[in-house]
Amino acid sequence: MKKSLPQRILIVGGVAGGAACAARLRRLHETAEISIFDRGPHVSFANCGLPYFIGGIIEDEADLLVADAKLFRERFNIQVHTRTDVLSIDRESRTIEVCDLSTGEKHIEAYDALVLSPGATPLRPPLPGIDLPGIFTLRNIPDSETIKKWMEEYHTTKAVVVGGGFIGLEMAENLAHRGIEVSIIEMLDQVMPPLDPEIAAIVEEHLRDHGVHLALGDGVAGFEALEAGRLIVKTQSGKSHEADIVILAIGVRPETTLAKNSGLEIGSRGGVRVDEQMRTSDPKIWAVGDAVEVRDWNFGFDTLVPLAGPAARQGRIAADSICGRASTFRGVQGTAICGVFDLQVAATGCSEKALRRAGDQDFEKIYLHPTQHAGYYPGAKRMHLKLLFRKSDGSILGAQGVGKDGVDRRIDVIAMAIQKRGTVYDLAEAELCYAPQFGGAKDPINFAGMIASNLLSGDMPLVHWTEPTTPSTTFLDVREPSEFAQGHAEGALNIPVGELRHRLSELPADRDLRVYCAVGQRGYLATRLLIQRGIPVRNISGGWAIAPYIR
Amino acid sequence: MKKSLPQRILIVGGVAGGAACAARLRRLHETAEISIFDRGPHVSFANCGLPYFIGGIIEDEADLLVADAKLFRERFNIQVHTRTDVLSIDRESRTIEVCDLSTGEKHIEAYDALVLSPGATPLRPPLPGIDLPGIFTLRNIPDSETIKKWMEEYHTTKAVVVGGGFIGLEMAENLAHRGIEVSIIEMLDQVMPPLDPEIAAIVEEHLRDHGVHLALGDGVAGFEALEAGRLIVKTQSGKSHEADIVILAIGVRPETTLAKNSGLEIGSRGGVRVDEQMRTSDPKIWAVGDAVEVRDWNFGFDTLVPLAGPAARQGRIAADSICGRASTFRGVQGTAICGVFDLQVAATGCSEKALRRAGDQDFEKIYLHPTQHAGYYPGAKRMHLKLLFRKSDGSILGAQGVGKDGVDRRIDVIAMAIQKRGTVYDLAEAELCYAPQFGGAKDPINFAGMIASNLLSGDMPLVHWTEPTTPSTTFLDVREPSEFAQGHAEGALNIPVGELRHRLSELPADRDLRVYCAVGQRGYLATRLLIQRGIPVRNISGGWAIAPYIR
Repeated sequence: MKKSLPQRILIVGGVAGGAACAARLRRLHETAEISIFDRGPHVSFANCGLPYFIGGIIEDEADLLVADAKLFRERFNIQVHTRTDVLSIDRESRTIEVCDLSTGEKHIEAYDALVLSPGATPLRPPLPGIDLPGIFTLRNIPDSETIKKWMEEYHTTKAVVVGGGFIGLEMAENLAHRGIEVSIIEMLDQVMPPLDPEIAAIVEEHLRDHGVHLALGDGVAGFEALEAGRLIVKTQSGKSHEADIVILAIGVRPETTLAKNSGLEIGSRGGVRVDEQMRTSDPKIWAVGDAVEVRDWNFGFDTLVPLAGPAARQGRIAADSICGRASTFRGVQGTAICGVFDLQVAATGCSEKALRRAGDQDFEKIYLHPTQHAGYYPGAKRMHLKLLFRKSDGSILGAQGVGKDGVDRRIDVIAMAIQKRGTVYDLAEAELCYAPQFGGAKDPINFAGMIASNLLSGDMPLVHWTEPTTPSTTFLDVREPSEFAQGHAEGALNIPVGELRHRLSELPADRDLRVYCAVGQRGYLATRLLIQRGIPVRNISGGWAIAPYIR
Repeated sequence: MKKSLPQRILIVGGVAGGAACAARLRRLHETAEISIFDRGPHVSFANCGLPYFIGGIIEDEADLLVADAKLFRERFNIQVHTRTDVLSIDRESRTIEVCDLSTGEKHIEAYDALVLSPGATPLRPPLPGIDLPGIFTLRNIPDSETIKKWMEEYHTTKAVVVGGGFIGLEMAENLAHRGIEVSIIEMLDQVMPPLDPEIAAIVEEHLRDHGVHLALGDGVAGFEALEAGRLIVKTQSGKSHEADIVILAIGVRPETTLAKNSGLEIGSRGGVRVDEQMRTSDPKIWAVGDAVEVRDWNFGFDTLVPLAGPAARQGRIAADSICGRASTFRGVQGTAICGVFDLQVAATGCSEKALRRAGDQDFEKIYLHPTQHAGYYPGAKRMHLKLLFRKSDGSILGAQGVGKDGVDRRIDVIAMAIQKRGTVYDLAEAELCYAPQFGGAKDPINFAGMIASNLLSGDMPLVHWTEPTTPSTTFLDVREPSEFAQGHAEGALNIPVGELRHRLSELPADRDLRVYCAVGQRGYLATRLLIQRGIPVRNISGGWAIAPYIR
């Protein structure tokens, strides 16, 4: 068997996917010659930790080095060449030309199999002043050292983060953690693009509560220098933001120069095209990580997903493929999480936005606001969950969650349910960990499944705050008067659920009646009560708790 | 439709299953007359919170009252009769006789549908001295008040908890939390019977570290009184334990008196027999909760599972069934969690014990010890996971976990994977929440799946510490000498994995070679290295980290 395996395997890029691939290759193929080439000074470093290193939460740079050249050599018999650029690939002769960046010396290396794991480059748009000192991107440990040094030298007190995605928010939190006043400028009208806007709005409120300024729906027009170490960020709307430092976190572009120059196929989204085994258009070349296009598991189209989890699995699959094994990459399901101060923000599967974009109309959504564990146990904290599912068969399409605790767990359970093509009925009858400090006799997952089941069975007709009102619309608020007094839908009628049975005569006839309570539970009871008494009504999913975030 | 529905529905027992059933009934059947009868002073109280109320973690008794008679009446139009005993059922005439315990008055109530949710009674074995003052069981709020009052009156400093199951451990923790010195006496040779002994051993170590004395494999023989408020607990092995208080937590017995007296079928395990719709042998009587026998979802046999989660789902299903809907209870999968001081101890699906008991031989197990999030992010804590799966097809059978953080989440994900008949390959390619503070680029779930896959593919032959050695067995310890020096298998050969390639000649030929490292990862690399060089070897799953707990 081993005779047919490639003997000389070269890997370009030694972080995440490349490192995972190298280690797996060695375990499958003890006698191969394996070498890693990386342009930077490190391989296998924890790039997801960089914002926290800048924030001082991770104190020691050494902690970021998951493995070094010595470990690769001694433990895995793998040669690591850092500060080494791969200049070109000669696919005909199966060689690459490399350049030692310390000495400038170039030489040729032959391969039987080649793995490209070059990653992605932070975007740096050609705006006026983009090259002024104090404007940084963050990709590697040297970048983070440069940023830290700048902040110390100029005693940074004000920062602008351009981009409100995951990295932008992590940077904002970490700069705030250093006592810096942070503004985020984001071209979209929401932070965290993978989330639906009403869920993002919860995060935005939390950011503002923590003193972060948000300039949404506004793009950066350019930068101007003030005195040393100070900048003005000009936006397209004409505003100016002063900053001692600017972090660009507006996304990344797959590094495809090497692939393009050697004629490998590039996909429609600009990443290296690979098959399910992570093989490029050249059967001797594989590619993994942020540089490649992957299949969106939910929709089937090609996409770019620069995340460490998929990269690690891709590295493993490329190694399998090189060693003649049949593993395949199933695509990316879209599971992600971000810490935003003390908030967990997570998602899996499809967003409503993405479903609409795809023209899908066979879906429904519900909102719920359960606590992460029994309400009677100290420390119960409310989370917000949104569940998307098929109207036709109840299969789960996606979920988003925001809360201080336990969101990671519920999104993970739903991620597994989606992976296994589960339905809302599966969630309703899931049997999950329960003790007072760890969950509920009905877990948030059970509630989500039950609410969705009630909708699908026709027991609970649903309506959303976003549905336009008509002249015949009446909002019925079934909360207590004290709750009603603190805010309610305009013109709403207030009849507490406990009094509803005796006050049916107060309900206007032949109206588009929309009932709500605080979170949806009393509204559900009221809906059932009224429907069974012949009064058509719909319950507003998520109740008043979600109303402030709808736009 | 509504004409055919039962009009008068009586529910015996208003906690957990009974309360859930009542609320669901009202939502499905607005015009029914629904009444709940409960012997105690409360309905719908949080019985899972009682140990924490005793420990003072839940301070206010009112927090334990999830819903009261007023709420049931006003919101649900349900009549609640507390302190009311149901004396008998006349199935012929469809009536029950009830007794108001405050007045002693009896009367007859007619039903169209009857739901039994009487719960279970803590066992109180007929041992010498069992009725001495100071020996308590814990079932309801009055019990916990009595216990608290006793502890205050006698300034309790020493407690004996009889029984090392979930409730026993929760009681031990809560008594310790009050500064009381606690001993647990358990007849089995392990705590937490649903766990396999080596996982329970991790919990036992933790209990001892927190000052709890464990007397395992020893039963209570009887009790003797000392001066007021003090007792001696005598064990079968002849030992004596002094105590100011004794808590009996040796299990519960389903309350079936009413069911038995009215001739309802009782199952082989002593619980009320019900079908998938929670219907008893009488088509007008349903039963739910701790009093009924349920199907073990893993094995198919009947069992007793006194847990709140299943009870709540059963209540819902009984209500559906009464209202002519086709929901069914899928059985109990065996998901459970317990907090033991700052440790999370959780399980789902089959244990190895249960598989062996069932004579199943088509399974394998692995151990792993991952951290709950990226090791480089502060606060990473190691957990211990055990995964059981089919050798023939990789389907997941069960899992157990112990650790300070993130165990609930991983067991929940596996619980969902088991529910959906997932395999270890599904775990390997699961896409879960990852950011440094929330997981790993490879989550513990991915690792578990990958390790199991490596075993099933034949890449990593496995052996366990429990496999008897033979004269030809050689243990090969591939850790560093500094680790080896701190403890190792008797007679083990120490060659660090990084030196193994150059020291192959030191390996004895034709031996039963068993390799291990700290957790299994270096052992896996060594295994691959040696096998590919023609040296047969097996890796010891879980490495040295699990060795101290094996017995």
